[in-house]
Amino acid sequence: MKIALAQIDCAVGDFDGNLKKIIQFSVDAKKKGASIVVFPEMALTGYPVEDLALRRSFLEASKRALNFLVARSSDEDMLDLMLVIGTLSPTKRTPDANRVAIARNSAYAILNGEIITKYDKHLLPNTGVFDEYRVFEEGTSEGSFKLNGERFQLFICADIWNLEQISDRVKATNKDSRIDHIIVINASPFEVRKQSTRYNIARQLIHGTDISLTYVNMVGGQDDLVFDGASFCMFRGKVFARAKKFREELLVVDIEKNNSPTQENFALHSESYDTESIYRALVLGLRDYVQKNGFTEVVLGLSGGIDSALCAVIAKDAVGAKNVMGILMPSKFSSKSSIDDALETVNLNGFKHCIQSIEPIYDAYVAELRMSSVAQENIQARIRGNILMNYANTNPSALVIATGNKSELAVGYSTIYGDAVGGFAPIKDVLKSKVYELAVWRNGHEFEKNNGSVIPKNSITKPPSAELRADQKDQDSLPDYAVLDAMLELYVENAHGKDELINAGYDRELVEEVVRMVDRAEWKRRQYPPGPKVSALAFGRDRRLPITSRF
Amino acid sequence: MKIALAQIDCAVGDFDGNLKKIIQFSVDAKKKGASIVVFPEMALTGYPVEDLALRRSFLEASKRALNFLVARSSDEDMLDLMLVIGTLSPTKRTPDANRVAIARNSAYAILNGEIITKYDKHLLPNTGVFDEYRVFEEGTSEGSFKLNGERFQLFICADIWNLEQISDRVKATNKDSRIDHIIVINASPFEVRKQSTRYNIARQLIHGTDISLTYVNMVGGQDDLVFDGASFCMFRGKVFARAKKFREELLVVDIEKNNSPTQENFALHSESYDTESIYRALVLGLRDYVQKNGFTEVVLGLSGGIDSALCAVIAKDAVGAKNVMGILMPSKFSSKSSIDDALETVNLNGFKHCIQSIEPIYDAYVAELRMSSVAQENIQARIRGNILMNYANTNPSALVIATGNKSELAVGYSTIYGDAVGGFAPIKDVLKSKVYELAVWRNGHEFEKNNGSVIPKNSITKPPSAELRADQKDQDSLPDYAVLDAMLELYVENAHGKDELINAGYDRELVEEVVRMVDRAEWKRRQYPPGPKVSALAFGRDRRLPITSRF
Repeated sequence: MKIALAQIDCAVGDFDGNLKKIIQFSVDAKKKGASIVVFPEMALTGYPVEDLALRRSFLEASKRALNFLVARSSDEDMLDLMLVIGTLSPTKRTPDANRVAIARNSAYAILNGEIITKYDKHLLPNTGVFDEYRVFEEGTSEGSFKLNGERFQLFICADIWNLEQISDRVKATNKDSRIDHIIVINASPFEVRKQSTRYNIARQLIHGTDISLTYVNMVGGQDDLVFDGASFCMFRGKVFARAKKFREELLVVDIEKNNSPTQENFALHSESYDTESIYRALVLGLRDYVQKNGFTEVVLGLSGGIDSALCAVIAKDAVGAKNVMGILMPSKFSSKSSIDDALETVNLNGFKHCIQSIEPIYDAYVAELRMSSVAQENIQARIRGNILMNYANTNPSALVIATGNKSELAVGYSTIYGDAVGGFAPIKDVLKSKVYELAVWRNGHEFEKNNGSVIPKNSITKPPSAELRADQKDQDSLPDYAVLDAMLELYVENAHGKDELINAGYDRELVEEVVRMVDRAEWKRRQYPPGPKVSALAFGRDRRLPITSRF
Repeated sequence: MKIALAQIDCAVGDFDGNLKKIIQFSVDAKKKGASIVVFPEMALTGYPVEDLALRRSFLEASKRALNFLVARSSDEDMLDLMLVIGTLSPTKRTPDANRVAIARNSAYAILNGEIITKYDKHLLPNTGVFDEYRVFEEGTSEGSFKLNGERFQLFICADIWNLEQISDRVKATNKDSRIDHIIVINASPFEVRKQSTRYNIARQLIHGTDISLTYVNMVGGQDDLVFDGASFCMFRGKVFARAKKFREELLVVDIEKNNSPTQENFALHSESYDTESIYRALVLGLRDYVQKNGFTEVVLGLSGGIDSALCAVIAKDAVGAKNVMGILMPSKFSSKSSIDDALETVNLNGFKHCIQSIEPIYDAYVAELRMSSVAQENIQARIRGNILMNYANTNPSALVIATGNKSELAVGYSTIYGDAVGGFAPIKDVLKSKVYELAVWRNGHEFEKNNGSVIPKNSITKPPSAELRADQKDQDSLPDYAVLDAMLELYVENAHGKDELINAGYDRELVEEVVRMVDRAEWKRRQYPPGPKVSALAFGRDRRLPITSRF
């Protein structure tokens, strides 16, 4: 029996577009001989829909789309194909002030114009980036179906992460009614090393059984999340089929038990695997933000530094060099080598570009205003922000991207309304040390059809500088990035306290200084554009902290 | 027996400061003959602490503060005084990936150096602005204590909002062990008409019983929330004592049953009561943001329009006229009457001010850049934003406030990085129609020791204009505010869909236009400063919607 893993990129609220894609993948799956086609969690609605799930009008629209799909499934080109698809279903209980949810997060199995079964997600993640307990009601249904004499059990995403609860259920159900196959539909966002965690969970779930497991994940970017796909099939602890990462695919797999499972063939834990995964996540996150929001072009400031060079290359890999506009905005503090590096970035990649000195405008501010030295630095960044926004206001199909990295964002080493302007911030969840690794990795590798050697060597090797005053270097104001990033991994990504950092061997004064900088910059982060989460703990809804705090 | 309602303003994470205040109020309560002093929910930690509740270091600090308080309670000046206080307590279960909480939201009853009982909040609100299911574990304890032969039952905030569940419990417990008094500690944020809802809930809870109810609420601003106080005591459905709104108070009340309850004596449902409440909320929200974040001064642009005039007066009532800096930033599109109105605002209130034309800087941009007409409008707003930020960068104790109202924010009628700059936005949750009402109300009333007649009549009566091009009026681009605001109440504050707006009688084309404008502005709202929630549904964490959406 063949099962088709339909790893698709859905758009939130685009019922027509999602339906069209679902039907096309279904028809293809049937052509390729599949008996079942499996779509991701919330494939019909897109994911996450956030508070849209609380709106009657959204629930009604999802119902209409589902009805259309059910009817469509009886047409010749989809006949006898079982569809498994994620969408909303209405709650049973009446919402009240404490629990306002009107919908469940559900999986439907559909065959020949009929709904065969429905499974509602049991476990609603309400940690990290997730607010599912806020917007959904938890389910209790069993949700299994028989096809060709074999029994399939449905689960949704987080359901299988509570192993204790689910394993027992699987084993109990298995005793009574013999499950042959588990199908898990997911909208599981990327973070570094997530895939090996998924394998471990899946492995434990079917441990000691002869149940096959089919894991279908969404692919695509949605605001600050990137779904990486990498759908897979597992039997007796071995992955025997895997869809691509970070792109759509219809993977048709034979799930008969006589399959000879083969171990997946790459190094899940190597540094370069991590680096490549992050890079691909950033490209997909930006590409989908641009396309799903109706932009065609990306515009950014090119300083000659590594952050803007990396962002520009990510933009090229996302939307094509001819759709990237780099604006060089030198001042009297810009070194000649900075301008050369920025121009080399343009030339290596074939970007559109222009050079716009900020000096005449800067002079106008200086002539008009009383300014402290900090204000004089910030105004330069803000003039640049204004120039970028002017380009976007004049060319409304262009999206401005902010090029700040996670280290800067953490300690507030950026100018709000200056270098922080933009609709999207591709590397906001990437620490500076990782920025270097990504640049080196990308220089050494083709990406899709684009060559390596895209970032000037000098941008990688020179000491980082904001160039807002003469001879300024980042390390005048900040600890060495290697040290800073290691501390940020503890304080931000692992949410450790001061004492734990001191116990880890960092100097007390340095710890207090870094923690103070991070905490004081919360107000700036709140106004920073969204960007793809790639780490275990990103700024934004993943890490919700008060601005006003004396802790 | 006397009970003291200690309605205090706590600061998040300020354990030393909160402790000091709690001890001072306790000592005063004893002096005034109270047997019990009751503090708000999470009084020791401040509220809401958001993800700080997930940090071991924060939980440990709260434990140390509690231990200190328990020990302190055996000192002479607090002897025989029962303290009821909200703080964190550790969970019983081990956190896992699905439920990462390490703490409960708890009420301790403390007497003479000992913890008498602890009650853990049962019902964790996870809707609207609340994320309690995310950060706390729910409790199951009963939490009652006896004093002078009478039995007191503790509850925390949302616990009493699920009447079905709690009433049954109260009645059941009452039968067995006779409850004489209920104490509810709260951190219940203000929104318009919330107080009458609180009364209704309390009334239903003790309906048909002879139980007295003491409701103690927090007071103060914390980022986007304002706690309004208004703590009260109720017996047989009547409020017989009420603390002030929007300020700290130690209210000592005799709760003997022979008290003659008197109905609270003001019109809870009148328009002017609502308007005054909103105004006081805005003042307190801004005052606490300024003070708790270590600012001493507020700076804003004064355009002569009603929004900036109202914000300036709110700032005066929050921090005093001598700490308000108004910057007039005229352009060639500014009418003489606008400048006159802005100067009148300065003169009526005694603000510091300066006049800084944006023309020379604007000319520099125009000379340097190719600009569409929209870009030419936006750059004016951005120059003004830069000038305000320059003031704050040069005077670091000054907080820039953004003066946009909710109607503008809803439809995106503001310039991101322009008039949207600032650390706080006092009227972001106030629709334009309500801005007028607030201005008229304030002109007709003293506020604390400040006179009425503070906003120029002309700012109220003239047609609103952004003055970014010649003869521009808001109504060139937007529907009449009366119509727009009525639609926004349906679409934003009541989360209705398009069809419901059309059914309510609005023209289909207009509905589609307004809905489109609101949805498209989501990205701008994400980068807008926080400001006090005063409506049933504010922008921000109260209303979580995707930026990328085709619905």
